[in-house]
Amino acid sequence: MSLEGFFQPESVALVGASRRKGKVGHEILRSLIEGGFEGPIWPVNPKAKEIEGLACHPDLKSIGRAPGLVVVAVPPQAAAAVVRECGRVGARGAIVVSSGFREMGEEGRRLEEDLARAAREAKVRIIGPNCLGVMVPARKLNAAFGGPLPAPGSIGYFSQSGSLLAAIADMGREKGIGFSKLVSIGNKADVDELDILRALAADEATGVIAGYLETIAEGDAFIREAERISHDKPILLMKAGHTEAGAEAASSHTGRLAGSRRAYEAVFARAGIVRCESITAQFDAARALAAQPVPSGTAVAVIANAGGPGIMAVDAAERHGLQLAQFEEATVRRLSESLPPAANVRNPIDVLGDALTDRFELALTAALADANVDSALVLLTPHAMTEADGTAEAVVRVARSVDAKPVLASFIGAGRVARASGVLRDGGVPCYDSPEAAVGALKAMVDYGRWRGRPKRVVKLFPVNRRKVEKIIGRCVRGDRCELGEMEAKEVLEAYGFVTPKGLVATSAEQAAEFAEQIGYPVVLKIWSPDIVHKADVGGVRTGLTGRTEVMDAFDLMMYRVPRKRPDANILGALVQEMCKGGTEVILGMNRDPRYGPLLMFGMGGVMVEVLKDVAFYLAPITGEEAREMLTQTRTWKVLQGEGAGEGVDVDAVAEGLQRLSQLVTEFPQIQEMDINPFVVGPEGATPVAVDARIVIERGAG
Amino acid sequence: MSLEGFFQPESVALVGASRRKGKVGHEILRSLIEGGFEGPIWPVNPKAKEIEGLACHPDLKSIGRAPGLVVVAVPPQAAAAVVRECGRVGARGAIVVSSGFREMGEEGRRLEEDLARAAREAKVRIIGPNCLGVMVPARKLNAAFGGPLPAPGSIGYFSQSGSLLAAIADMGREKGIGFSKLVSIGNKADVDELDILRALAADEATGVIAGYLETIAEGDAFIREAERISHDKPILLMKAGHTEAGAEAASSHTGRLAGSRRAYEAVFARAGIVRCESITAQFDAARALAAQPVPSGTAVAVIANAGGPGIMAVDAAERHGLQLAQFEEATVRRLSESLPPAANVRNPIDVLGDALTDRFELALTAALADANVDSALVLLTPHAMTEADGTAEAVVRVARSVDAKPVLASFIGAGRVARASGVLRDGGVPCYDSPEAAVGALKAMVDYGRWRGRPKRVVKLFPVNRRKVEKIIGRCVRGDRCELGEMEAKEVLEAYGFVTPKGLVATSAEQAAEFAEQIGYPVVLKIWSPDIVHKADVGGVRTGLTGRTEVMDAFDLMMYRVPRKRPDANILGALVQEMCKGGTEVILGMNRDPRYGPLLMFGMGGVMVEVLKDVAFYLAPITGEEAREMLTQTRTWKVLQGEGAGEGVDVDAVAEGLQRLSQLVTEFPQIQEMDINPFVVGPEGATPVAVDARIVIERGAG
Repeated sequence: MSLEGFFQPESVALVGASRRKGKVGHEILRSLIEGGFEGPIWPVNPKAKEIEGLACHPDLKSIGRAPGLVVVAVPPQAAAAVVRECGRVGARGAIVVSSGFREMGEEGRRLEEDLARAAREAKVRIIGPNCLGVMVPARKLNAAFGGPLPAPGSIGYFSQSGSLLAAIADMGREKGIGFSKLVSIGNKADVDELDILRALAADEATGVIAGYLETIAEGDAFIREAERISHDKPILLMKAGHTEAGAEAASSHTGRLAGSRRAYEAVFARAGIVRCESITAQFDAARALAAQPVPSGTAVAVIANAGGPGIMAVDAAERHGLQLAQFEEATVRRLSESLPPAANVRNPIDVLGDALTDRFELALTAALADANVDSALVLLTPHAMTEADGTAEAVVRVARSVDAKPVLASFIGAGRVARASGVLRDGGVPCYDSPEAAVGALKAMVDYGRWRGRPKRVVKLFPVNRRKVEKIIGRCVRGDRCELGEMEAKEVLEAYGFVTPKGLVATSAEQAAEFAEQIGYPVVLKIWSPDIVHKADVGGVRTGLTGRTEVMDAFDLMMYRVPRKRPDANILGALVQEMCKGGTEVILGMNRDPRYGPLLMFGMGGVMVEVLKDVAFYLAPITGEEAREMLTQTRTWKVLQGEGAGEGVDVDAVAEGLQRLSQLVTEFPQIQEMDINPFVVGPEGATPVAVDARIVIERGAG
Repeated sequence: MSLEGFFQPESVALVGASRRKGKVGHEILRSLIEGGFEGPIWPVNPKAKEIEGLACHPDLKSIGRAPGLVVVAVPPQAAAAVVRECGRVGARGAIVVSSGFREMGEEGRRLEEDLARAAREAKVRIIGPNCLGVMVPARKLNAAFGGPLPAPGSIGYFSQSGSLLAAIADMGREKGIGFSKLVSIGNKADVDELDILRALAADEATGVIAGYLETIAEGDAFIREAERISHDKPILLMKAGHTEAGAEAASSHTGRLAGSRRAYEAVFARAGIVRCESITAQFDAARALAAQPVPSGTAVAVIANAGGPGIMAVDAAERHGLQLAQFEEATVRRLSESLPPAANVRNPIDVLGDALTDRFELALTAALADANVDSALVLLTPHAMTEADGTAEAVVRVARSVDAKPVLASFIGAGRVARASGVLRDGGVPCYDSPEAAVGALKAMVDYGRWRGRPKRVVKLFPVNRRKVEKIIGRCVRGDRCELGEMEAKEVLEAYGFVTPKGLVATSAEQAAEFAEQIGYPVVLKIWSPDIVHKADVGGVRTGLTGRTEVMDAFDLMMYRVPRKRPDANILGALVQEMCKGGTEVILGMNRDPRYGPLLMFGMGGVMVEVLKDVAFYLAPITGEEAREMLTQTRTWKVLQGEGAGEGVDVDAVAEGLQRLSQLVTEFPQIQEMDINPFVVGPEGATPVAVDARIVIERGAG
C-alpha cells in the first residue's frame, strides 16, 4: 500500500488499548478520541469490555472489518504476531509505537528483525517501532502520544526522534503554526525517511517538508529523490549526530578532509535541501517558506521605526551574506516626499519612533515596488503612539498585493505586540521575536530560491580515452594493489585530458643527466619505486636541479641513501621531471562517500591543504556552473582572481579540471579516493599541469 | 552628583506633563503613577491645573522643593532652559526624553550643544536627550515610556536604542526575568556609557551588567573600566553597527585586517566582556549568569530523557568549543547500578522516555558529584508519563546543593512544560526553549569563567635600547616622513631584541658581488630607495642569487629597469641581504585603533596573509599567556606545531616576538601601524629572524 492509508484512514484500531492512565495504550486512545477522529475507533484488548466509552474487541478479527489503520501498543515480544494478524484481517498499515526493539540491544534487534519479516510476509507496511505515532490535523487524526493536535497547515514534518516531534507539535500549537502531517519514524524497521519523503512530496496538503534525522540509510537514493522534490517543495532538514571519526583512516588529503559534516553539506547543497542548525531555526524557516513566496535574489529592504533593530538586522544580513538593496532614485524620491525630513529614506528605512500605520504602509509599498528589492523585513518596536495592530494589518495588505517578493516581520516586545503578531500570522506574514531570527529565516528562503533558480544542469562530457583507464585499473585490481603508481596515475590523468609534466625514468646517473638535458633545466628528481608512497619522507625528492653534475650527484645520493631508509623497497630508478615554474598550486580531489557517492573537492594546494582546510566539496557529476561555484566558496578564489600573490589565473581552466575529474570518477566507481595535488594553474590561456596525483582503487573491484 | 540620584530619587518632577493620551509627557506620567512610585510625583505644565489626579505646577520653582529627579519632556528648543531651571531649584539630575536633537541634523546638533552647555553650567547631570527613560523595578520607579515595569532582579541593562530597551523590558515581563535597572542612554549629551557602566558596577542590586551599544566614545577608558569591573560582575555587550570601511586606507597588512569588528572582538576579549550576537542570545546569557554560578571549566554533562535533544546539545557544544565531560568510572558504575539497562550511562546520559523524577534526580546528582564535570544541562521532553513539574523541583533541589557548578535546563515543548519552566526559573535554574539556546548560554558562562580564572597578568619587560628608537623616530618625524625606511625599521627591531638578516647596501655591481661573498650565498637583492615602498612591484626584488655573475647581472638590470618605472625615485643602490632558508613564515603586526589603542596581530605570514585572514588580534601590552593564546587562535597554530609542512617551530620564540613587539608599540605611541613580515621561525632553540618590516609613524608626532 502507499503511505496514504496512514494519513487518511477510514477507521483506526488500537491493539494494546489500556485503561491505565499513563500507559501508552491509554494515551493514544485518548488522543484519538480527543482529536475528534470522525471514523470508527476500535480499541482491542482481550481483557477489557470497554475503555473510555468505546466497546473493546478481544482481537482484530472480531471487529469484523479490516481497519484502515492499526496502531500497535503491545509489548515488543507480541508485536510481530499482531502485524501478522493485521495481514490476515486485511489491514495494510500499522504504526508500531511499542519500544523495546533495536534501541535495547541484541535481544531487541532480533525482535525487530522478526517484526520486519512479519510485515514483509503479511504485506503490511509498518511505521516504527519505537515511535510516537502520526498526526494529521486536517483529518482530526491523532494516532500518537505527543499531546493534542496542532492546527492544520502546510508544513509536513517527520522526525527520527519522537520527543522532538512532540516538541515541534507543541511549538506549533503555541505559535499557531499549522501542519499537514507529523510523522514519527522511530526505528524505521520498514517505512523509512525515503518513503516518508516521497509520501510528503506526493501529498497535496504539504507545501514545505521539514524533518529531523540522525541517520540516512540509502543516502544516494534519498538525495536523488530530494533533488527531484526540491524543485516543487522546499525540504528543510536538521541532521544531528555528525562525526568526523573514520576520516583519519583515509590516505588522501581529500579523504581526510571529507568528514561527514562536510559530506552532508555538499550533498544537501546539491539536492537543494536547506540545512538547519537548530529546531528553532528550522521552525523559523519553515514558517517563512510555508507562508511567503520564494525571493528571486539576495537584496533585502529593511523598514523599521527605530535605529537599533534596523542596525541589528543589517549586521545579521551581512553575516548571512545577504545584500542590503540599493534603492532606485525614484524610490528614494518617493520616500523623501512622503516621510518626515528626519526619516532615513535609504535602506534601512527609518520611519521614526512616532510613525503611525501610514508611514509603514507607504515605506513598505515603495520598497516592494523597487526593482532592486527582492524581499522586505518590517521591524516594529512599540513606542507610545505606535499602532502595532493597524500596522500589522497594513503589512498583510501590502504583502498580499505583491507577487514573488516575500515580506517577513519582527515586531519586538513580547506581550505588547502579541495581538499584532497574531494579525500578521493569520495574514500569512511570519513574525519573529528578533530581527536576527527574521534574517535567518530569510537567508534560508534566499538559499532555496537560488538553488531553484539555478540554470538547468548540463554535465559536459569530454572526449576521453576510457579504454586506457580501464586497462590500468584492471591491472591494478588483478595485482591486488590498492593504489596506482605515479606513472599509472599520470597515464590515467592524461587519458582524461590532463596535462602532466614531462618525465622519464632513469636507471643511471648518466641517463638521468641525459634526460634532464632533453627536458630542459631546472628538473626535479624523484625516487622511482612501487613501494614508496611518501617519497619526500625518505629523501626521495630533489627539486630545482639546474645542471648536469647536480643531477648526477642527486641521482647517486638517492641510490645510496634511500635503500638504507627503506631496505624493503624495490627501487627501479629515479624519475627526471620537468619543473613547473610559477603558477598557483591548487588541489583537485575526490572521496567516495559510502552513502552518497563521489564527493569532489577543490582547494588551495600544497602541503598546507589539511591545515588551512580552505576547501569546497560537491557531489559528482558536476556542471560547469557548479564547478565555478566550488571555486568561489573558498578563500583561494581571491588568489585565483589575483589578490595577494599577484596576477590571477585561468579560472575556467580550473573549473574544467574539476569537470574532467568529475567525469573520471563517475565513469570509474572503482576509484575510491584521489588527489591531484598540486594542480598548477597559470594566467589565462595557459594550460594547467597536474604535477602529482594519488589514486586509490577499491581492493577487489573489477 | 553621582548617578545614584537617578536610581533612587525621593521625588520626581515631570516637566512637559501632558493630558493628551499618546503624548510622551502623558505616557511617562502614567508610567510613574502605575509603577507605584512611593515618593511625590509633580507634574509641571503651566497650562494645566491637574493631570491624572495630580496637582500640576506651572514651573519647577513653584513646587517649593528640589525634586530628586526631573524628567524633561518638552520640545527640544525649550529643553536647555528647563535644565537651567533645574539648576536654580537645586535639582541635580534630569532625564531628557525629548527628541529632535543630534539625530535630526545640524539644527538639532546645535540644540544638543546648548543643552549640554546648560547642564555643565547649571551643574545638572542629564541622561539623554532622545531617550526612553529609566526604570528601577525594586524602587517602583518607572520614569520611562517603555511599558510597565518588569520584576526586580539582578540584571542591569543599558541601551543606546530606546526601543530595544522597551523590547528587553517586555521580554523580561513575559519570561519573568527581573532587572535591577534599565537605562536608555539616548544621545549621551552628558551621561554616557562609561558613566552608566561605573554606576552599575557600584550598584549592589546589579549582579550582571548587559548593554546594547552602537558607538563607544572613550574606548580606552571604557575598556580599562570594563576590565576592572569584569572581575566582579560579568558584562554582556551587544555592539551593533560594525563597519569594515576605513580599513582600506591602511598601508600595512595589519591595518587592513584590523577592521572594526576584529577590533571589538580583541578589545572585548581583553576586558572580559562577553560579546553577544543577538538580543536573544544576550538575554539567554544574562539569565544564566544572573542565576547560576560561573563554571570553572569547559566540561559539560548532558542529561536527557530522549536521544534527539541529547544529540542536538552535543552537536551545539562541539560547535561552541565546549567539551563533553568524560565521567569517572565511579560515576558510570553508580549510574549503571541505578538506571535501567537500556539507559545510556555515558555522557550524554539518556534516562529514557519513561523516566520519572527519580531518574533525573539521580543522574543529575551523580553527574554533578563527578570531578570531571564543570556544568550540567538537563533536557526534558514530555512523554506520556514524564513528571515535568516534579522533575523541575528536583533539578532545583540538586542544583542548589552544589557549589560552583552551574545547572541549566531546556524543557522542550512550549505549553506542556510551561509550569515546570516557571518552577525552574523561580528556583534559579534558567530554562531555555531549545538545547541549542541552553548550550549558547553555557558557552557565554564558560568564556567569562575562563577569563576570570586566567592567571594574574604580568607583562614582561625586556631590556631594550629605547634611546636608539627615540632617535630614529625623531629623525623621521623631523623629516616629515610617515614611514621608516627599511634600514631604519630594522634598526628599531634590533634595538628591541629582534634578529634581522645580515645586509649591506651596495652602490655598484662589483660591490654587490663583494658583499654577497661576505654574507654567503644565496643572497637577496633589493632596490634601495626611500621613495619606493612596494619594491616587488617595480622589479626591485630578486631572490635566490647564488653566484657572483648572477648578483652583478641582477644589480645592473635593476639599475637600468627600476628608474624607467619610477623616474621620480631617488635610487641609492641595492641592498644585498642574507637569504633565510627554511623555517616557517609568520606575520607579527600592530595597528593602533583610534579608540582602543595598539592592536597586536599574529598570523600566517607571506603574501597570502590578507587572503587567508588567518590572524588573531589582541590589545597591547600583552602577557606571555596572552601571546600564546593568540597563536592558538589561528589555524597557523597547527603549522607551528608541525602539522602539514613537517617539523614544528619554537612556539615560545614566536610568543616572545609578540611580547617584544607589544613593548615597542606600548613605549612608542608614535608608531601607528607596523608589520614584521615575514617573521621566519625555526625549530626549538633556533633564533627567529625578522626578515622584513614596515613601520608607519604618525605624521607630526613627537
